Amino acid sequence: MDLNLTPLFAPEGVVVIGASRQAGKLGAAMARSLAPFPGARALVNARRPDPAEGVYASVAEAAAYLEGRLDLAVLCVPAPGCAEALAEAAAAGCRAALVCSGGFGEAGPEGEEYADELRRVARETGIRLLGPNTSGFFAPHLGLTASFVPAAGQLPAGDIAVVAASGGVNHALSFDLVAAGNGISLGVGIGAGLDVTAADVLEHLAEDDRTTAVALHLETVPDGPRLVAAVRRVAAAKPVVALVVGRSDIGDFARSHTGALATSWRTTRAALRQAGAVVVDDERELVDALTALSRIRLRPQLAPGLGIVTAQAGPGLLLADRAGTDGIPVPELSTTTRRALSELLPPLTYQRNPVDTGRPAETFDRVLATTAADPAVVLLAVYALTEPDSVDLASAAQAAGLGADSPAVVVVGGLPEDVTEQRARLHKAGVPALTGPAAAANAVRALVRDARGRALRGEAGEMSPALGGEAHASSPVPAGPLDEDAAKTFLAGLGIRTPDRVACDDRAQAHQALRRLGGPVAVKVLDAAILHKTEIGGVHLGVRTAEELDVALDAIGPDRRYLVEAMAPAGVDLVLGVRRVPVFGPVVLAGLGGTAAEALADVAIRLAPLPVTEAATMPDELAARALLDGWRGGPVLDRAEFGRVAATLAAALAASPRTAEIEINPLRLTADGLIALDAVIVPMPTVPMPTVPTPTVPTPTKENDHA
Amino acid sequence: MDLNLTPLFAPEGVVVIGASRQAGKLGAAMARSLAPFPGARALVNARRPDPAEGVYASVAEAAAYLEGRLDLAVLCVPAPGCAEALAEAAAAGCRAALVCSGGFGEAGPEGEEYADELRRVARETGIRLLGPNTSGFFAPHLGLTASFVPAAGQLPAGDIAVVAASGGVNHALSFDLVAAGNGISLGVGIGAGLDVTAADVLEHLAEDDRTTAVALHLETVPDGPRLVAAVRRVAAAKPVVALVVGRSDIGDFARSHTGALATSWRTTRAALRQAGAVVVDDERELVDALTALSRIRLRPQLAPGLGIVTAQAGPGLLLADRAGTDGIPVPELSTTTRRALSELLPPLTYQRNPVDTGRPAETFDRVLATTAADPAVVLLAVYALTEPDSVDLASAAQAAGLGADSPAVVVVGGLPEDVTEQRARLHKAGVPALTGPAAAANAVRALVRDARGRALRGEAGEMSPALGGEAHASSPVPAGPLDEDAAKTFLAGLGIRTPDRVACDDRAQAHQALRRLGGPVAVKVLDAAILHKTEIGGVHLGVRTAEELDVALDAIGPDRRYLVEAMAPAGVDLVLGVRRVPVFGPVVLAGLGGTAAEALADVAIRLAPLPVTEAATMPDELAARALLDGWRGGPVLDRAEFGRVAATLAAALAASPRTAEIEINPLRLTADGLIALDAVIVPMPTVPMPTVPTPTVPTPTKENDHA
Repeated sequence: MDLNLTPLFAPEGVVVIGASRQAGKLGAAMARSLAPFPGARALVNARRPDPAEGVYASVAEAAAYLEGRLDLAVLCVPAPGCAEALAEAAAAGCRAALVCSGGFGEAGPEGEEYADELRRVARETGIRLLGPNTSGFFAPHLGLTASFVPAAGQLPAGDIAVVAASGGVNHALSFDLVAAGNGISLGVGIGAGLDVTAADVLEHLAEDDRTTAVALHLETVPDGPRLVAAVRRVAAAKPVVALVVGRSDIGDFARSHTGALATSWRTTRAALRQAGAVVVDDERELVDALTALSRIRLRPQLAPGLGIVTAQAGPGLLLADRAGTDGIPVPELSTTTRRALSELLPPLTYQRNPVDTGRPAETFDRVLATTAADPAVVLLAVYALTEPDSVDLASAAQAAGLGADSPAVVVVGGLPEDVTEQRARLHKAGVPALTGPAAAANAVRALVRDARGRALRGEAGEMSPALGGEAHASSPVPAGPLDEDAAKTFLAGLGIRTPDRVACDDRAQAHQALRRLGGPVAVKVLDAAILHKTEIGGVHLGVRTAEELDVALDAIGPDRRYLVEAMAPAGVDLVLGVRRVPVFGPVVLAGLGGTAAEALADVAIRLAPLPVTEAATMPDELAARALLDGWRGGPVLDRAEFGRVAATLAAALAASPRTAEIEINPLRLTADGLIALDAVIVPMPTVPMPTVPTPTVPTPTKENDHA
Repeated sequence: MDLNLTPLFAPEGVVVIGASRQAGKLGAAMARSLAPFPGARALVNARRPDPAEGVYASVAEAAAYLEGRLDLAVLCVPAPGCAEALAEAAAAGCRAALVCSGGFGEAGPEGEEYADELRRVARETGIRLLGPNTSGFFAPHLGLTASFVPAAGQLPAGDIAVVAASGGVNHALSFDLVAAGNGISLGVGIGAGLDVTAADVLEHLAEDDRTTAVALHLETVPDGPRLVAAVRRVAAAKPVVALVVGRSDIGDFARSHTGALATSWRTTRAALRQAGAVVVDDERELVDALTALSRIRLRPQLAPGLGIVTAQAGPGLLLADRAGTDGIPVPELSTTTRRALSELLPPLTYQRNPVDTGRPAETFDRVLATTAADPAVVLLAVYALTEPDSVDLASAAQAAGLGADSPAVVVVGGLPEDVTEQRARLHKAGVPALTGPAAAANAVRALVRDARGRALRGEAGEMSPALGGEAHASSPVPAGPLDEDAAKTFLAGLGIRTPDRVACDDRAQAHQALRRLGGPVAVKVLDAAILHKTEIGGVHLGVRTAEELDVALDAIGPDRRYLVEAMAPAGVDLVLGVRRVPVFGPVVLAGLGGTAAEALADVAIRLAPLPVTEAATMPDELAARALLDGWRGGPVLDRAEFGRVAATLAAALAASPRTAEIEINPLRLTADGLIALDAVIVPMPTVPMPTVPTPTVPTPTKENDHA
């Protein structure tokens, strides 16, 4: 198969198969949309050929007429005829095709057969196929509109590419981006994705110099690792902003079990973020992010400081409030900066950060330049209502040198026509213009996340030494079912701290262990077959005396093996697991212990394996992360230590193809660091399964009270 | 003081004091903005009067010339001269004034003096004063622009009023509302609010027939109960959509203690919601909400069903996904509806809900009407890209009868000019038009929240019987400090279940109590002075035998009183408290037990007192509410029972002016219902305090493990 999508998206010639003159027909809409295309162009209508009008009886005839310059065939024929038309197009020399029709996979067994035929023709001929079930694509730079939506032909050319699961969303996002003052380099609706997938288009865009940023919309992911690789490749060169559908499918936490923590919406978002995409919540945030990221990109860094200059206090406060909520630092300005500002602004204005200019005066450009030049300010956000009497915002921004070398986002408030005029001038100067505080806050967040993500992935720029360190050398999980002691011994071998313990074959050994360890100890049943020890009375905590030990052993029952273990100090319990999930393969999951955290599905996810630096960022994604930072005088989590444990566990799973899951629950944060209080290692099922299984997870139990 | 704000917002005549000809001066900008005002109009410039040009030497002279028709004085003089100018204006018969200048309260002691003088003049003369520190207001219907922002004069007249804490935000919101196709009835920036407050303007708007919906922006609240009363009054007649600033001030949960649960951002939002406002997160959501709520309002009901009709599957899915995330029901359509749709749509389209029409055909209007008529559909959301060949969306919506009687929100996708044209026609027909799936989802959520809020407040419409019931008759808290037993006895008197217990004066009584209650019991130190019993070893759980009791009593120490109490069955722990907070007074707080819930500040807040129906909705606001609905086979919370307990506690605080706080922690949800396992009643400090105190709260302790 030819991986090159140039014949699809930048064809020398296009032929519409099933072209029609009947208004309302797909073949008529496509012929009309493609009419302005300046390259070679032909229509095919077997029943009403009219060569004088460029309508031929067959693709072969059209190709002959156009001397083989046909690259792309646009098929406007119903599903049953598509495979044959595709084969004809391929035979006539077309290297790419677009099928818009429905009636394939979604239409029952007969449709599935049509889909199989299409796939077969594509595979056998090597022709690349976009669709079916899509409204097509457009490449405004080339005057190429392979979409039946009429307005698509009027989208202005620009820098942003759209790769959408759905043709409708491709159009909607492109229109939204244009409404925000942007242009489109390429807009693609993947549709059913029988051949060309989002990953393919991303690979194409990595090489496309016209595109400076990419919008990605996903509904389902056919191949996780492939998509991740493609996003990683594009994101290294240009920003990718991703919107993933499917949140509400897992929204009903009441019904969901721990298994829900790894469902595709969350995992897909985590995977995309890890690969370098900026992940957004809705299409407006996507537009805001791309309006900024298509024009400017901060250098890689963990916590770029935001300077805010506002001509009106109230909107500036809305912006600062959102930045604070998003955890974006709004640093105090240096005394040098403040001294300079005091000479530019009236005495009563607030001159720290935000800088509130009051009604902007002729010094506004110097206020912008001065604030942007502060050592703590990496990115500037500017708000002003249009007031022609007092300041021309676009001119001030230019005079202040805002743009690629002095990154800034600017909000212009005012009547729509004033805003549009100012925005166009700002965009021409390379300064992203947004429509309000919320939009600007979205843009700022996207710029910061992009810079932070690149720093964490080790791109040039600052890197917090606290996040560094190496994962422990990975070693594979030993074969066979492992009981708690064996699991902990394996973890200890990976450099993960576990409590002092003794595996005991009988009561005498248990008593000996108590004497050796001293009280209090935990006494547990030791049996790899028992996953829910607490529920069968198999866990006894705080055992101090021989008498108490006998009570515990009696309760566990005779003819058992026992684990006698030193009690850990009090602390905060985490859950850390690595497991294999559908579509994406091995993932790391980290959360806090306790049912509330679980009910909230408050969990951070990463694809495995991963570097320590990346793993070290997981705790800060947790909503309840305050518990890890000295809550009520408790211990503070060393992120680097956590990163080393998580990355080590991830490497261990990667090295153990016969292991489905390793879970440490709880992993306790104590004043002395992390310690694994219980661990379960689940082997892969030995019977081959039709799909990658989602292993069950032991439920948090009273062992959380292990104190 | 004259409460009537008509002289301010609808004056017969206006005078600009400190008018200027010098461009860039406030007095020049205001004179220009007010020039188009069709009523009586005069300028005052003491140094350069020019009566031929309508510029007088004093307000008195201007008033004489205009035969007393001056109602409103716009003061464009620096802070030091404002009080004198205000007095002159009042003496000349003006009943209202606007002061835009800064230099008052925010400018140190001198400015505070100027502010005091302004207040004094207003109080003594009865003149109503808007400002200072505001860019003013505008009333487009009257051609009245009392703002120095030039574009404000071009805002179209319409139905939506804006009441903003900040003049800049008043303008920004008004421009945003206009950009979304709306008009403005009145836009007001409160500024420093020395006299006229947001509550005053709301009271004015309750009577203003031109206004169909109100945007409210708040930074600080001077008088909580007054604001709540005003919102309640307006919201009963027309929707109020509120945006509250200050989220990030309390964002740092790590530093915050339980006290943070009641800080003003959360409490203000809760109070506004309870009073009937729809509370939003940012200004875009505010615009979306008002675009809908200014045109349509659903009848009061708890869970209106959403029907979705989309011409493109992808954007419809985005909309359905958000509705699902927001908990808005998207019900299956009836078989009658589906049969009717099957005759209107091609066979392969999805015809349940969402209804995916595929490319819309001439039947689109009937699809809309059919779906809207389904018994389960209360509100319709429609998405379509503009495709002039296939459907005219505005005409289809009208033909389908969408509007006030068949509520719907419509998204038109396409090029900005096409969208604007369609939107204008839809708005003319009374159908809110939105710009995309996220905007439509915001509009839907606002409509649903408004309808639900009105149902809960008992307005006509359905009411879930499950939420009904009466609070227990309230009785005041007994005087003096109360120990745990006395606190529980008080709660028991309110009909709140407490464990069987015996207050013991000595060890003998404790042993007698154990014999009476049987094991296991909890043994606690009983002393009203000890708030943190666990921390001093004062709580012993699971005591079964006389020997264990002796160990517990030894640990508590001699010369103590003891509480011996039956252990409660396992369950889910909640925290329920009532307390007095600054600005708003008595509030009810409900959350889940455990540190994770606390770290997340996952708490529902209501002003007290409150009806059972309102209190019963608190648990469903908690993020971790899944724990209350049979988590892992556990008990299900009876909302009505919870509502009765919370409303009863709220009434008790209201009846006890000398009590600062009553907290039940934990309030355990068991299979038998709710039971109060520990309770603290905190009296008001006896020494008068400068401000209303925020009482300290006992931290959750090991008593949470009371099982």
